[in-house]
Amino acid sequence: MRRNIYLRTIPIEEALTRVVERLDRERLVGVERVGAERATGRVTAEPVIARYSSPTYHSAAMDGIAVRAAETFAAREGSPVRLAPGQGFVFVNTGHPLPTGFDAVVMIENVVMDGEAACIEAPVAPFAHVRRIGEDIVATEMILPRHRRITPYDVGALLSCGAYDVSVYERIRIRVIPTGDEVMDFTSRPAPGPGQVVESNSMLLCALADEWGFVCERVPPVSDDPEALAEAVRAGLESDAHIVVTVAGSSAGSKDFARATMERFGEVLVHGVAAMPGKPSLLGVAEGGKLLVGAPGYPVSAVVCFERLLYPLACWLSRVEPRSKQTVTAHLARSVPSRIGMVDFVRLAVGKVGQRHVALPLSRGAGSISTLTKAQAVTQLPAAAEGLEAGAEVTAELLCDPGELARTLVCVGSHDNTLDLLADLLMRHTPAIRLASSHVGSMGGLIALRNDAAMVAGTHLFDPETNDYNFPFLAKYLPNLPVTVINLAVRQQGLIVAPGNPLGIAGVADLADGQVRYLNRQRGAGTRILFDYHLAQAGIDPSRVSGYGREEHTHMAVAVNVGTGAADCGLGVYAAAKALGLDFVPLARERYDLVVPTAYLGDPKIEAVLETVRGGEFAARVEALGGYETAWTGRIMEPGMGLPG
Amino acid sequence: MRRNIYLRTIPIEEALTRVVERLDRERLVGVERVGAERATGRVTAEPVIARYSSPTYHSAAMDGIAVRAAETFAAREGSPVRLAPGQGFVFVNTGHPLPTGFDAVVMIENVVMDGEAACIEAPVAPFAHVRRIGEDIVATEMILPRHRRITPYDVGALLSCGAYDVSVYERIRIRVIPTGDEVMDFTSRPAPGPGQVVESNSMLLCALADEWGFVCERVPPVSDDPEALAEAVRAGLESDAHIVVTVAGSSAGSKDFARATMERFGEVLVHGVAAMPGKPSLLGVAEGGKLLVGAPGYPVSAVVCFERLLYPLACWLSRVEPRSKQTVTAHLARSVPSRIGMVDFVRLAVGKVGQRHVALPLSRGAGSISTLTKAQAVTQLPAAAEGLEAGAEVTAELLCDPGELARTLVCVGSHDNTLDLLADLLMRHTPAIRLASSHVGSMGGLIALRNDAAMVAGTHLFDPETNDYNFPFLAKYLPNLPVTVINLAVRQQGLIVAPGNPLGIAGVADLADGQVRYLNRQRGAGTRILFDYHLAQAGIDPSRVSGYGREEHTHMAVAVNVGTGAADCGLGVYAAAKALGLDFVPLARERYDLVVPTAYLGDPKIEAVLETVRGGEFAARVEALGGYETAWTGRIMEPGMGLPG
Repeated sequence: MRRNIYLRTIPIEEALTRVVERLDRERLVGVERVGAERATGRVTAEPVIARYSSPTYHSAAMDGIAVRAAETFAAREGSPVRLAPGQGFVFVNTGHPLPTGFDAVVMIENVVMDGEAACIEAPVAPFAHVRRIGEDIVATEMILPRHRRITPYDVGALLSCGAYDVSVYERIRIRVIPTGDEVMDFTSRPAPGPGQVVESNSMLLCALADEWGFVCERVPPVSDDPEALAEAVRAGLESDAHIVVTVAGSSAGSKDFARATMERFGEVLVHGVAAMPGKPSLLGVAEGGKLLVGAPGYPVSAVVCFERLLYPLACWLSRVEPRSKQTVTAHLARSVPSRIGMVDFVRLAVGKVGQRHVALPLSRGAGSISTLTKAQAVTQLPAAAEGLEAGAEVTAELLCDPGELARTLVCVGSHDNTLDLLADLLMRHTPAIRLASSHVGSMGGLIALRNDAAMVAGTHLFDPETNDYNFPFLAKYLPNLPVTVINLAVRQQGLIVAPGNPLGIAGVADLADGQVRYLNRQRGAGTRILFDYHLAQAGIDPSRVSGYGREEHTHMAVAVNVGTGAADCGLGVYAAAKALGLDFVPLARERYDLVVPTAYLGDPKIEAVLETVRGGEFAARVEALGGYETAWTGRIMEPGMGLPG
Repeated sequence: MRRNIYLRTIPIEEALTRVVERLDRERLVGVERVGAERATGRVTAEPVIARYSSPTYHSAAMDGIAVRAAETFAAREGSPVRLAPGQGFVFVNTGHPLPTGFDAVVMIENVVMDGEAACIEAPVAPFAHVRRIGEDIVATEMILPRHRRITPYDVGALLSCGAYDVSVYERIRIRVIPTGDEVMDFTSRPAPGPGQVVESNSMLLCALADEWGFVCERVPPVSDDPEALAEAVRAGLESDAHIVVTVAGSSAGSKDFARATMERFGEVLVHGVAAMPGKPSLLGVAEGGKLLVGAPGYPVSAVVCFERLLYPLACWLSRVEPRSKQTVTAHLARSVPSRIGMVDFVRLAVGKVGQRHVALPLSRGAGSISTLTKAQAVTQLPAAAEGLEAGAEVTAELLCDPGELARTLVCVGSHDNTLDLLADLLMRHTPAIRLASSHVGSMGGLIALRNDAAMVAGTHLFDPETNDYNFPFLAKYLPNLPVTVINLAVRQQGLIVAPGNPLGIAGVADLADGQVRYLNRQRGAGTRILFDYHLAQAGIDPSRVSGYGREEHTHMAVAVNVGTGAADCGLGVYAAAKALGLDFVPLARERYDLVVPTAYLGDPKIEAVLETVRGGEFAARVEALGGYETAWTGRIMEPGMGLPG
């Protein structure tokens, strides 16, 4: 089985330099004339000169009367100068040329008409309220230097000065070729089966390119066949594209043909960058001088390759600097490990908690699509770092509008399906509130509150001794933090089983010593604590439960494993079972609450949450999920309340 | 003469609230289904649900072999576990489904082949290097909430999860109608004569709308005729546009028909906002519920109306928050006056001088096109402020990429045509350097250096006593600031006169007591000082020079006034006369130098300047302007050098 060997991985900066040194942008990217009105975002290839002055004539800057300044010098309050029409003054509107012989304008508000004559009570200076010829721009002056990215404002200036056509560099054209036997073309609206994925990286790149001001054209996916891939790359090189990108197959596996293909058409300059994700990236130059890029197939890796390699190179070809991202300093809500020798790009959800920004590190999986949609920022852990502890400061490069951070509510804790409903309704609030929720279990939520790393924690911790929820744990873990507890819903937990319950599971007793493959939740999850409680009640040691050590982080993840037969049973909420058409063996009702530090009750985001959960729509939609009761939804909880009757 | 009366001007926030309260966005803006691949920038009208999980199956996360974890537990270094092909292991590539019965993957790097068998020397945990079904997204989960502006990343997620079509709000459509008897349609590539201007505001709005994610359609300009305007507005209201904008005619002049037209088709809600520029803005709602906007005609006023009124209202219709602009704190290089009761929007050029940002207030003229192209930021002087002194801190909302500020070189002082060449060549430098130059005269430049409000000053101050340039003034005004003086060029100053020199002007003596209308430069300008010196040499008192009190700020502005007959003569550089085809009566050679605080010599921007002015292309292009000598260009000057021989 042939496997390729990586070139040694090199730092991103070095990779870019290596490629820039080998590309001839003067030859590769041409110059064209375009109408100024269509030139926004284009880059000037030469300085642009004004053909006409602005203004082209002395003109009235105000509505009023044109006068000769010298004839007004005697005007005083109570002793007006009287000017005759035509000889002494002429009515003018803003923008009108100053009539010959006149050299100033008196604003209409300062003119008193006396029959046909105009009376003014104050002198005016020569050229008062006159826009002088060329006072803004003089014909032959440079309006724009070269290598300027043309703005909408520039479009106005170009047209005003008669620079109707401008010489600009061609827009950078990219051809993207998705590859892989397993990928399906989205255009056929496919339903992926096992071993299949819907190809999306190519359209992600097209959308990014559009934002960057480049033009990206996608071709249908090519299978893992060296000849088919070569044919697609050849067609790309023969097209008018400046850059040909293959997606997937850039690594060193037995079906990774990107490198060999690149070698067929040109020279590989970089194979492997010291970055995670994004490491198996390929850069090369084709014989004709075009840039070749081999992007990894995992979406997050592909994005790193697009943003950190392709984008700066395309900018360089365009003669513009890459846009810089706004940064904020944020405190990590959790520790993040990092590999020495690699720059780690860690995507973050970021919100304001009190006076500081808190960053929730998102899933690090290179294949995680949800990481891309949830990320509001990305931070780079330098190659020399071994990782960062919770609370550490990071520089977060924003991917979202900076204003969004103040409207982002950081919620850490247990997972519940109603949080999605809350997130949706908060987006309808004015202003829209973005819910950044991190599912680390109920205990994780309390710890986040203690560290001031969240504004809200979702918890459903049952205390058998007091038969109460959450308060005993708050007393123990947050004794010094005044908090307010608001019920979100009361929910049904139970064993999620395959449709028809083929194994006839009736309760936790059926999980002991048998063939039932259980799927557990992670440590610190309220659902796991609940499971342990029921095991203890039934006198079953965890070691007797097959699969007790296998963990998932959400109700839905448990349900989908049951749905596909990867597990026989797991504990979770009814809503998760119902969503996937599974059966459900009820085990217990429990209270799911939101815990908010009392100091934050006046925060507009918390006020929006209270308003939303107390509104009728939230309760109605929660009820519609099934397995929820909303009698207490939105109510402030007190110790000892337990469950509603 | 009928003149409209303003409604009382109201604060912008109040104007927006008044309009939002009267618009019915549910009725006005519809919902449509679009393909996810074309949905970037669109706003979701409902939550988007995953149709398929991601991944849809347990898959290998690495290239390697699929194994049963339980069979590896005994593996140790030096004591490998040996697995048979098919039964004990199967080769897998990244992304492959895990074969039935296997539950973990060993990376290929950790496998030693022994014939057909695979040997591994370390145990693996269940599900090691396996991407579990739904670990990222589970079918039926919400991928995006409603009112989310779809990003390129979201496009990838939507396609991956089979959300091939999404419900989004219509893109906001704008119809823009330029108006005015004086405006010319740019599409005919006109040459404006006196009283004419090329209409550009409509295309500026189209370009802005495109950046904002709206669609703007422009119609040809309509003359100042109430019926023609009404016809154009009616057509706009009958089109599919959500917003109809008229440009110009929104004020209270005799030809301002925008308000009356708005009243004909609906209700005027706002006429006049407490902002400069932008005051004469109109907002209303048409009978059918569409938004009506009447923008002022001056370009900068129009932009304020577009950005501060139209944009937030269109965002509100779209269900998204307006994007926030990044801000920096900057120190004003000059004082700026402000009118109490009005918010003043002051556009700024901004660059880094030492460790702080310095802001150069640009021309305040509402008609200034160059202000729009030069502005890198805008600051708001609050309605309660009477203006700010030089050195005051302002909050500058950036209009450019934030990275550009560090690449912007602030140059204050005298004007010279070679600065345009320098600006052009600096943009070709890597990285591109933007030259922000403010023309306040040579003395103004020295004061800016003293106040640390510029990194470079351009000066050409002649001292008759020592027959030297600049150094005597540096000794007097900057005694404690170590500076380095670099020659940019030696230039010819002279009297700029009409072609053929019809008045036969031979020198300053001809300007005394006669009919020659002179045009002067502003106080502090080296050229004015030079003129005063020559007047004194000739024994002529300034009061004897007609037009001595009329000031322009640049050589080119002087030249264009002479060119159009608005003045007969002015002192300036040969290049200005030549550019406009005028005649030139030489008066003196002089040295134009750049003064740089020595502490800044190591700054990359200054290094780029030195590299550029010492390069052959700069000298060649300067020579080509005419009237310049470059023998000393780029050389460091010392006191007493005077002029080259």
